[in-house]
Amino acid sequence: MSRTLSFYENPPPDRWKELCLRPVMNHQALEEIVREVFRQVKNNGDEALVRFTQEFDGVGLNSLSLHEEEILQAGSHLQADLKASIDAAYHNIFTFHQTQIEKSSITETSEGVFCWRESRAIERVGLYIPGGSAPLFSTVLMLAIPAQIAGCEEVILCTPPLKDGTVHPGILYAASLCSVKKIFKVGGAQAIAAMAIGTNSIPSVYKLFGPGNQYVTAAKLHAMGIGVGIDLPAGPSEVLVFADDTGIPDFVAADLLSQAEHGEDSQVLLVTTDKHLAGKVENSLARQLENLPRKNIAAAALKHSKVVFFENVDSAFSFINQYAPEHFIISSDHANNYIKKIRNAGSVFLGHYTPESAGDYASGTNHTLPTGGYARTYSGVSLDSFIKKITFQEISPGGLHTLGPHVVNMARAEHLEAHARAVEVRLKGMIS
Amino acid sequence: MSRTLSFYENPPPDRWKELCLRPVMNHQALEEIVREVFRQVKNNGDEALVRFTQEFDGVGLNSLSLHEEEILQAGSHLQADLKASIDAAYHNIFTFHQTQIEKSSITETSEGVFCWRESRAIERVGLYIPGGSAPLFSTVLMLAIPAQIAGCEEVILCTPPLKDGTVHPGILYAASLCSVKKIFKVGGAQAIAAMAIGTNSIPSVYKLFGPGNQYVTAAKLHAMGIGVGIDLPAGPSEVLVFADDTGIPDFVAADLLSQAEHGEDSQVLLVTTDKHLAGKVENSLARQLENLPRKNIAAAALKHSKVVFFENVDSAFSFINQYAPEHFIISSDHANNYIKKIRNAGSVFLGHYTPESAGDYASGTNHTLPTGGYARTYSGVSLDSFIKKITFQEISPGGLHTLGPHVVNMARAEHLEAHARAVEVRLKGMIS
Repeated sequence: MSRTLSFYENPPPDRWKELCLRPVMNHQALEEIVREVFRQVKNNGDEALVRFTQEFDGVGLNSLSLHEEEILQAGSHLQADLKASIDAAYHNIFTFHQTQIEKSSITETSEGVFCWRESRAIERVGLYIPGGSAPLFSTVLMLAIPAQIAGCEEVILCTPPLKDGTVHPGILYAASLCSVKKIFKVGGAQAIAAMAIGTNSIPSVYKLFGPGNQYVTAAKLHAMGIGVGIDLPAGPSEVLVFADDTGIPDFVAADLLSQAEHGEDSQVLLVTTDKHLAGKVENSLARQLENLPRKNIAAAALKHSKVVFFENVDSAFSFINQYAPEHFIISSDHANNYIKKIRNAGSVFLGHYTPESAGDYASGTNHTLPTGGYARTYSGVSLDSFIKKITFQEISPGGLHTLGPHVVNMARAEHLEAHARAVEVRLKGMIS
Repeated sequence: MSRTLSFYENPPPDRWKELCLRPVMNHQALEEIVREVFRQVKNNGDEALVRFTQEFDGVGLNSLSLHEEEILQAGSHLQADLKASIDAAYHNIFTFHQTQIEKSSITETSEGVFCWRESRAIERVGLYIPGGSAPLFSTVLMLAIPAQIAGCEEVILCTPPLKDGTVHPGILYAASLCSVKKIFKVGGAQAIAAMAIGTNSIPSVYKLFGPGNQYVTAAKLHAMGIGVGIDLPAGPSEVLVFADDTGIPDFVAADLLSQAEHGEDSQVLLVTTDKHLAGKVENSLARQLENLPRKNIAAAALKHSKVVFFENVDSAFSFINQYAPEHFIISSDHANNYIKKIRNAGSVFLGHYTPESAGDYASGTNHTLPTGGYARTYSGVSLDSFIKKITFQEISPGGLHTLGPHVVNMARAEHLEAHARAVEVRLKGMIS
């Protein structure tokens, strides 16, 4: 058998860093292009957007915006079974994200000192939905559902138009389920610039969400530099499958391929404690790859993919945690036994009947996840991404009587006399 | 009476943007300096750190690190009353941040489809504690307590040494309470570079926390560019006091001064619905300013401070929400009535006996908060800042039997055939 994937056997920890490397974007070159796009959108507003859409998408538009009617009627242009599936996905994603609402409760940290947090929606958010080869209505659900639950006042959606100047009804239908009312036909870095700066048609927002190509990613980073929030620094999508000797090779191979078909830069890893299984997965890969429509893309992605064999399961998980995969599938009869070993991952798929594609579309979890090792530090998109938590405190006169002298001591030790006096002026007032 | 503060009466909404402006950092000039610091730390490691410390802090060090003994014994070098106050603050901050632990519960989004989130500590975090005129042990508590509760494995603390090459015992004592074991005597952009890149002495971390001057802030932004997480983009500290006709002028003035003494670039605003009160506050300010040790700094900050009067309370809160203050004090007998109007703020102080300084030190809330209007999008530091939430899903064979066809429909509509087949290969397996 000829190996499709590079094979590594018990690599020592000092080689892990190299095995965990991801592709690096040339930020600087992109930054210059993106800065010019922002400049033009700032100076020429909608006119620049229409011009860019003609230039890059080959579509001439009279108006960037859609009528609310078009959004509401999209469902009638959609196949019944696809509509039912989007409805089912909406239900699951809504249900899971609704559990993320946090109830506020007041804590009396010491007598008369009350502290709590309250969540508030980010008032204005912008969702970017890429166009290109596929209508990503699933991403509409993943971003607009938590925005809907959070109660964001203004939700803007930008997506590049199809060649005929329309937007795919799947995108519009998903948006209508989530009560998105403002959709604009503009894509690329110019869409990000428009939502960051604002134009006559497109309102500016406080935070930007959504995937996209390297120009979109660079534009989001540029937007961050001018004070607009972003969801996550995005890179090529990734899956890491861990399989022990109970892993099912055909399922593992199918999961690896579902990641590999995303793009040639997709990151695909298999980590296993069963050397025998690795060979079976490779055979299955070759077989399943054969009649895949996006065979060429998947094959290219597999070329730089890796199989890493570890004798020792704890070494395997140390390596996996250092890699910090976006998607992490555990192919085992005993998947739950491994949960405690997981430190860094975006989303985890447990057992034989939980393919990544279930989470990509419909299980309920979010598919906007940290790539490139960012799972060491960042969570994926959730309700939390659409809210802020404001802290509150209220101190009773008695509470300040007890707490105040401590504040005074510390403020003086930090040479902040006015901080001390802001307490003392109140304590004096109590006595008189 | 001569006005200390600029006065604005019922400014129309189209003037609010200008009233909400904050000072802007010259990122580009700083970026060049910081890039060179990173380069030198990368190439020369500890040797560069020792050299920078000699050059910028005027301190010659043999070793950057402290012995664990020195940290543990710091309490014995501290005044008893300051120690007791730090203990009291530790108790309150720990108590409040502990309530932020989220229990994980499993949701069955549809039959046989189980989703949940689990929190994991960020494994390696770096805390920066500025030196300069004051030993900021309060910031040690604010950063190291949530790290301790989260269970971060490796907590690094960097702070510039005093002129005699030691670290203030208040900082060491606060660190020891929070079980911080690795403290390094290095400050400025070079400390940030060291924690971002790692040197022989100083381990690299995944996320950086802490305030600092513009070089430190620029260094944190640079670190973000090379993949290291940061807590918040930091700017000059801010307070906005809202007072209605029940506000107490002496308390309001004391709070404004406690912010103004931080630095000449401190942002101080009073928004009021009582024009009469504004005058009384100004008189009290003049009186209280007189014998303040940091009088010159506070007076300079007050020069660019503002009083904004609104006839209408809802206009006042619309303006406040657009400003999105870091600290927001409500000076009123009915402070709680205004809570629902608050959309954007870092931390809120309610009523007459809740000065900002209580939250700065000891009420229990965190004092690391979003400045510069970032409160529209960001929360302050909390336990959440030291963890990630990983999503999990597990689907039973029966669950995939029901959910799978929906996933297949959606995957095909998005032209992702391998995603559909990763489901079908499993459904087929079930039948056979």
